[in-house]
Amino acid sequence: MTASGTFGPALFTDLYQLTMMQGYFVSGLHTQDATFDLSFRRAPYRGGYAVWAGLEPALEYLSGLQFGEADLTYLDGLGLFRPDFLAALRGWRFTARVTAFPEGSVVFPHEPLLTVRGPLWEAQLVETALLNVLNFQTLIATKAARCLSAAQAAAHGGEIVEFGARRAQGPDGALGAARAAVIGGATGTSNVQAAARYALRVTGTHAHAWVESFPDELSAFRAYAALYPDATTLLLDTFDTLRSGLPNALTVARELRAAGHELRGVRLDSGDLAYLSAQVRSALDGAGFPDVRIVASNDLSEFVIQSVIQGGGRVDVYGIGTQLATGGGDGGGALGGVYKLVALGGQDRMKLTGDPAKTSVPGTKRVWRARDGAGRYALDVVTGQDEAAPQPGGRVSDPANPLRSRRIPDGLSWADPRVTVMDAGQRTRPAESLPELQARAHAELAALPDGTRRLLNPHAYHVSLSAELQGRRDALIGALRDRHGL
Amino acid sequence: MTASGTFGPALFTDLYQLTMMQGYFVSGLHTQDATFDLSFRRAPYRGGYAVWAGLEPALEYLSGLQFGEADLTYLDGLGLFRPDFLAALRGWRFTARVTAFPEGSVVFPHEPLLTVRGPLWEAQLVETALLNVLNFQTLIATKAARCLSAAQAAAHGGEIVEFGARRAQGPDGALGAARAAVIGGATGTSNVQAAARYALRVTGTHAHAWVESFPDELSAFRAYAALYPDATTLLLDTFDTLRSGLPNALTVARELRAAGHELRGVRLDSGDLAYLSAQVRSALDGAGFPDVRIVASNDLSEFVIQSVIQGGGRVDVYGIGTQLATGGGDGGGALGGVYKLVALGGQDRMKLTGDPAKTSVPGTKRVWRARDGAGRYALDVVTGQDEAAPQPGGRVSDPANPLRSRRIPDGLSWADPRVTVMDAGQRTRPAESLPELQARAHAELAALPDGTRRLLNPHAYHVSLSAELQGRRDALIGALRDRHGL
Repeated sequence: MTASGTFGPALFTDLYQLTMMQGYFVSGLHTQDATFDLSFRRAPYRGGYAVWAGLEPALEYLSGLQFGEADLTYLDGLGLFRPDFLAALRGWRFTARVTAFPEGSVVFPHEPLLTVRGPLWEAQLVETALLNVLNFQTLIATKAARCLSAAQAAAHGGEIVEFGARRAQGPDGALGAARAAVIGGATGTSNVQAAARYALRVTGTHAHAWVESFPDELSAFRAYAALYPDATTLLLDTFDTLRSGLPNALTVARELRAAGHELRGVRLDSGDLAYLSAQVRSALDGAGFPDVRIVASNDLSEFVIQSVIQGGGRVDVYGIGTQLATGGGDGGGALGGVYKLVALGGQDRMKLTGDPAKTSVPGTKRVWRARDGAGRYALDVVTGQDEAAPQPGGRVSDPANPLRSRRIPDGLSWADPRVTVMDAGQRTRPAESLPELQARAHAELAALPDGTRRLLNPHAYHVSLSAELQGRRDALIGALRDRHGL
Repeated sequence: MTASGTFGPALFTDLYQLTMMQGYFVSGLHTQDATFDLSFRRAPYRGGYAVWAGLEPALEYLSGLQFGEADLTYLDGLGLFRPDFLAALRGWRFTARVTAFPEGSVVFPHEPLLTVRGPLWEAQLVETALLNVLNFQTLIATKAARCLSAAQAAAHGGEIVEFGARRAQGPDGALGAARAAVIGGATGTSNVQAAARYALRVTGTHAHAWVESFPDELSAFRAYAALYPDATTLLLDTFDTLRSGLPNALTVARELRAAGHELRGVRLDSGDLAYLSAQVRSALDGAGFPDVRIVASNDLSEFVIQSVIQGGGRVDVYGIGTQLATGGGDGGGALGGVYKLVALGGQDRMKLTGDPAKTSVPGTKRVWRARDGAGRYALDVVTGQDEAAPQPGGRVSDPANPLRSRRIPDGLSWADPRVTVMDAGQRTRPAESLPELQARAHAELAALPDGTRRLLNPHAYHVSLSAELQGRRDALIGALRDRHGL
């Protein structure tokens, strides 16, 4: 997380976090033991799961977070803050404990994905930045997983790469998107800075401008192949994919082979990608080039990929731009993660609000995740922090609607997937590499029930509340209603 | 535009820009005089216009752009680049000319918004970063303008503020969104770092957690008001807006007044915002507090604002989060700007592709914009660089469909709105302040035909090609077809 201008990351927050911090400080509440849970209420893209990403940048932000002199001078100038509070901010550090799903896990609505427990004013300040980075990276990693699962449905397989730097939301948005896309399954990015920073595979072809800079397409192809004889992917559609690009690419493929090299690939960037890729595949195979890979781009999404495959397309690599860099389109664009106070001074806390879906689940919690006999994930149960694993036959309820309840089946094995990633403000584990995170996401996705991976109308993976936690919630709702005369 | 890690902004590009640059260098084409146009094909959000934003960050990026040692070392390690090319990059600078609409202008599909003219390899490299920052900021400034126009439709007026830091795409995405939102008309942001960096008004209320940290809502309200007696906006919906939040806020409003202060506002964050704001307005007015402002938040968009007003709502300030920070929802999420080679070595250039809508318009160009007798914008005509202003009765054609043509009406006054913002790689004008840019956007939006501002199915503002430019395009299409046997 970058400092901007002379101002540090501690100012990357909403104003009300700071005015509330001062309020807690003045009221003597600031050091109360507070617990906040970060969760989301709906999976992105109307899907059945999310791939949890952004934890490493979140921990980098929390580590060493402090207010610099420029930050304090700016705050002083706002006329809202008292000298004793600003003086207290000078020595302020993040000393809380953070518990979270490991990055790359599959996660679901209504469960605490990350929990901050520590002094109230610390846990309050970091809400904005934690939500920012975790919402965004989880959104993109999930989009990548969806696109990859669509691509891999083809009999010949398929992979995805991230091509969206020009459509991302700012340069750092592009960097973050490349990182998250790789966690979700992308095998590379076109973004050189992202590749350099995160040690990713960098990939690319050439643009139409290259072809237009030469007298004709064949000259342009030859010049590119001469320079990159073992790394050439030719863009076929500057003038006409089948009538110009393809025959010229075949000519260059033969010339490269005669010189002891092989054309790596061709790229399609317009038109009917199913039809064109099938035609191009057939022509390449017929000419003795079965290993030349077909790359496709042009406003791709998981649904376009699915459609290309259903239409008989033979694309090997999907270069995904806008939708992978922003999560935009098809109902995406942002993940609505929230960060809610659930306990303070050992007491459960919640809000009621006018919208039942926004009513929070109080209390410090634990997540129990069950696997069935085949090792597949079966269901998650959110319990109080000190509850044991759910027992077969026990009744659990739907967090969004307590009228819906179910019984715990037999034959499940339970584990708490969350880990303490920060204690007393110090990281407890080394940073994980992106290949490790990608491998975790891959294994986690493979453990999902098949129907949960479906792109639309998926099987809803069940996240339930234990009867004890549901009881605590009901009791608190009743107490709050009584206290406020509702 | 920030450097990331040890790598500089020159690496913020797609790999193929660098492989093409080397190709131009090796082929001796790199210093050829090239012209690239940046444009978009559809206005965002299915609307009728865009508010052009991001020019200042784009010019900051171009100024002083160079390859640092870490960048060159990284590129060398990729095994794709020759020593003579890397040596040439060491002294590389951006020396081109940039012509563009002033930031804050209203702009339309199919016109060149920004033109880079200079050595081919310079103009090629910067494509990715220019598109990134201009696509994003234009997307957000346009969303702000749409939300503000919806808010201002109420008889009692309305303003918008940017509340989206937690849902933005990374921390710098949040900064850029706050900047662009203000250009498009937002009067403030909740993002402290953005406010500090861009000298914006910073604004906020308190969260539900504040209320939950006190024994009851009234205590929480009193504590906040005691600390900020002249700057308190109370959040009403932690337990129940009308039965708990509103009466408690009225109590605090009376107590503040008795102490010589005035409650500034109340905030609604759930439920039926039209009904609740009308009820709250009526109660505040009836109790003698007509100046207490009603702030609303909760997944707002231009369409939700419109619906709240149509439902009799009395909101004064809309705090817009996700949609203003990301452009997401309702078909947004990214602006599909493109950057196309249109001339090289004095010759027109274009691509044909398999998609007629992606066929570019060749040639170095000028934009002529007409005002009618009332000072309203009437139409734009894109001509060749050296063409004079269009003449009444002259025929011009639709860039997306040459079969559609129209005649230039009488009584229009013409001007070329674009300016040279960089010459020989040096900025030609001082940076403009955000209030200046906001004022320009305000004046430009006021000059639009009313129907063009409509949120859905707007009147299509006409951007046409001159007959001469259309003729050059037709001739080039014919020549390219002949040359490639199409």
